[in-house]
Amino acid sequence: MIKNFDFDSFTSIYADKKISKMGEMLARYQRKLMDLDIPVMIIIEGWESAGHEFVINDLIRELNPRNHHVKEYDYSNRVEKDMPFLWKYWKLIPKKGDMTILDKSYYFNLFNNKEIDKAELENNYELINTFERHLSDDNMLILKFFLHVKKKTHKNRIEALKHDKNRSFFVTDIDNKQYKNYEYYEKRIGRMLDKTNYDFAPWHVVSAEDLKLAAREIIGKVSESVINKINEVSKQKEIVYTRKPFTGPYPLNDIDLTLSVDDDIYDKELDELQEEIEGLTYKLFNKNIPTILVFEGMDAAGKGGAIERLTRTMDARFYDVVATSAPKETEKQYHYLWRFYKEFPPRGKTTIFDRSWYGRVMVERVEGFATVQEWDRAYEEINLMEKNLADRGALIIKYFIIIDKDEQYRRFKERESDVDKIYKLTDEDWRNREKWDPYIDSMNEMLVKTHKENAPWIIIEGNDKKFARLKVLREFIQRAKQFIDDK
Amino acid sequence: MIKNFDFDSFTSIYADKKISKMGEMLARYQRKLMDLDIPVMIIIEGWESAGHEFVINDLIRELNPRNHHVKEYDYSNRVEKDMPFLWKYWKLIPKKGDMTILDKSYYFNLFNNKEIDKAELENNYELINTFERHLSDDNMLILKFFLHVKKKTHKNRIEALKHDKNRSFFVTDIDNKQYKNYEYYEKRIGRMLDKTNYDFAPWHVVSAEDLKLAAREIIGKVSESVINKINEVSKQKEIVYTRKPFTGPYPLNDIDLTLSVDDDIYDKELDELQEEIEGLTYKLFNKNIPTILVFEGMDAAGKGGAIERLTRTMDARFYDVVATSAPKETEKQYHYLWRFYKEFPPRGKTTIFDRSWYGRVMVERVEGFATVQEWDRAYEEINLMEKNLADRGALIIKYFIIIDKDEQYRRFKERESDVDKIYKLTDEDWRNREKWDPYIDSMNEMLVKTHKENAPWIIIEGNDKKFARLKVLREFIQRAKQFIDDK
Repeated sequence: MIKNFDFDSFTSIYADKKISKMGEMLARYQRKLMDLDIPVMIIIEGWESAGHEFVINDLIRELNPRNHHVKEYDYSNRVEKDMPFLWKYWKLIPKKGDMTILDKSYYFNLFNNKEIDKAELENNYELINTFERHLSDDNMLILKFFLHVKKKTHKNRIEALKHDKNRSFFVTDIDNKQYKNYEYYEKRIGRMLDKTNYDFAPWHVVSAEDLKLAAREIIGKVSESVINKINEVSKQKEIVYTRKPFTGPYPLNDIDLTLSVDDDIYDKELDELQEEIEGLTYKLFNKNIPTILVFEGMDAAGKGGAIERLTRTMDARFYDVVATSAPKETEKQYHYLWRFYKEFPPRGKTTIFDRSWYGRVMVERVEGFATVQEWDRAYEEINLMEKNLADRGALIIKYFIIIDKDEQYRRFKERESDVDKIYKLTDEDWRNREKWDPYIDSMNEMLVKTHKENAPWIIIEGNDKKFARLKVLREFIQRAKQFIDDK
Repeated sequence: MIKNFDFDSFTSIYADKKISKMGEMLARYQRKLMDLDIPVMIIIEGWESAGHEFVINDLIRELNPRNHHVKEYDYSNRVEKDMPFLWKYWKLIPKKGDMTILDKSYYFNLFNNKEIDKAELENNYELINTFERHLSDDNMLILKFFLHVKKKTHKNRIEALKHDKNRSFFVTDIDNKQYKNYEYYEKRIGRMLDKTNYDFAPWHVVSAEDLKLAAREIIGKVSESVINKINEVSKQKEIVYTRKPFTGPYPLNDIDLTLSVDDDIYDKELDELQEEIEGLTYKLFNKNIPTILVFEGMDAAGKGGAIERLTRTMDARFYDVVATSAPKETEKQYHYLWRFYKEFPPRGKTTIFDRSWYGRVMVERVEGFATVQEWDRAYEEINLMEKNLADRGALIIKYFIIIDKDEQYRRFKERESDVDKIYKLTDEDWRNREKWDPYIDSMNEMLVKTHKENAPWIIIEGNDKKFARLKVLREFIQRAKQFIDDK
């Protein structure tokens, strides 16, 4: 049973309002949302054939079609089964000031697919709650409606649709399954709503017995929530955010940067490691393991050189290197993790991030590109994103290459005087160098807060490039082999 | 037989060069390509199991992995069968300064899929040649290699692969089919190479009997072509481009802008037309027809209002409105049509472009954002793109809404004084207005040069908004019905 829902006493408090007037009002708020850069995501779930299209059409009728997008559920589930959960939805989220209406969503599968076991279901609920909370933290307004109908009405709707010559194709097996097992599905739905009902993304169960009334209720609720959100965002600037200061530990303080390797040992070992990596790449592919490698470190720490050695014998079709720089105009229109979701590898392949989402808690923190509140919550956002990837079977290794200040100076000078390397050195590198200590602080905190068993940081002593490269390769081999064995 | 290819006398002119030295040289040119914003696309085709991965790994070994991307052929053909030919490849093209290596490509299907009939094959060749020429016109360097092996070698390669424990999964039915019908495929391949071999995207047939030799030949050819391209681009600025002046006709000169409609007739007819559109949308969906609607016209011509009336009864899940504004930073990194390819609808759905790729020959022309050469060749580029879409079954209707200068002034003033509309008016609108005549010139030429039977322009007399809206809806209904009947 869907808890606390009483069909008989359901009346929309907007029942006596004129729907076109309500729509025009909403259109006016929509422009305010655009001014304030607030993205809105509205999810319409419900019993199959309950009348989703009817309420959606009413909802958007008066809105500016340039700024809202209705996304129909893709039953085919095509690409996404190879990808992390919610991956597809990261690509569908509205940009700032836009409104996305999802006609069925990631919830659909959760209450319709009986094959998902309880543990997976719980895990999915958690991932959804996290996803929605992160978007909400980033100022997105999220509203979720469930169109509820009685068993008899459900049957009538299906029958009516079957005889509608334009729309009979909408009736599928799922309709009949739901109808035949109405009580079972009702229980499943109830549990799902319970588990995913939070202030930051509340569910509204709406009676769709009368669709006109349902549409009015939805437009009313949306308008009400939009006004609240506008008020909330307008007031946000006044709130002072204080964070718990970081008090250690400081992993970067105890690194032995004198570690080095002889040239002839380097050559020999490099050859051996690279030979082993060639075979490993195919094994990871054959085992369907997606691999995510992250390289972070100071400017001129040797990330590029290490990546070159690591990939030298990898089959070029199986990996991609993504160089992360400052976010572009378009990317700034979304949650900062959006642009990385697009790059995650499908099963069997590898993505190597040359710098990554960790910019949020390093450069964006130190340079003030993100507010304290934004980068402070990023530790948790990142941990949960990586957990999601790991839960879906990804091998994650994060390298942090450290060099000291003198070594960096030497390398900058070397780049300046080498025609083949000068392109690597920018004014920004010199500027960042002046903030060495704040950067070290941010790095220490990051390493401590985001080091997880399934997504560990490997600290690489980088003053000797050759030592660093061998360690990167050795760690990759050891961890990849272990991962394959544990599978 | 693959014409003029003599295995016995094939020797790479680079045979005695050291491959690592050649690679380092290429890496140095790569940085020059980045400086000059030149994108490079390299296609590696060949007999199955000829050794693509081997030559690709050699080719990229010394390159900066941040700036090249290897894209493996996707055998599954997943989404693309619903989309225009080459649609997927528009998303894979390199951005300026990057290098994309396609391990098999749109050519693969053409020589391996026996079910493509001759007419479709010819059509595909033409579309490919157009695609490559347009990219080349936009300064892309395109190189295509075909790895050729003798029948006996082909067999040996397949056998060797089957026994390679890491890579045996690479062997598929296609290998065996090719081997068993070697002579048939050889003929098909020969014809394909012939039909798609142009200066702007030449084929190089490379003997892959000796893969080391093949890799050297490819790196050598790539380097050579890169040098030539760099020289060509460096010299481009000196070339003076003269275009054939446009001498009419001038369709916008004879528009009757006094056409209008009475309020009560408007209301009644609007209702009727909208009711008809509701059903039509489902019919187009059921017939799997992708629909592309383009709205162009002066500022304040009433495009938005017309789109709102047109979509009012459409099922919101089946259409999307794309508002086109000035290209973003990222979009400028690609051919100007790139960003539109991402928006074209799958079968059964509708995309409505509120402004479009026609900006190239209007605002970009008048404001000097594109060079004369760039916008002058855009007419042909646009015509061929639309032909491609129409050939794949798309219904295309392009509306041009015209108002006169006085009416525009009146509407600007009205927007200024209406709190709900002022957001629509920008300084740019006033600036554009000062260039009324050059805009009219560009519009006349555009209407004449891009009016095609399968992608016609409908001129809408816009001074009376209501008249304009009814005509937009009426034309849509009439053309959509006709299109469905003709199917």
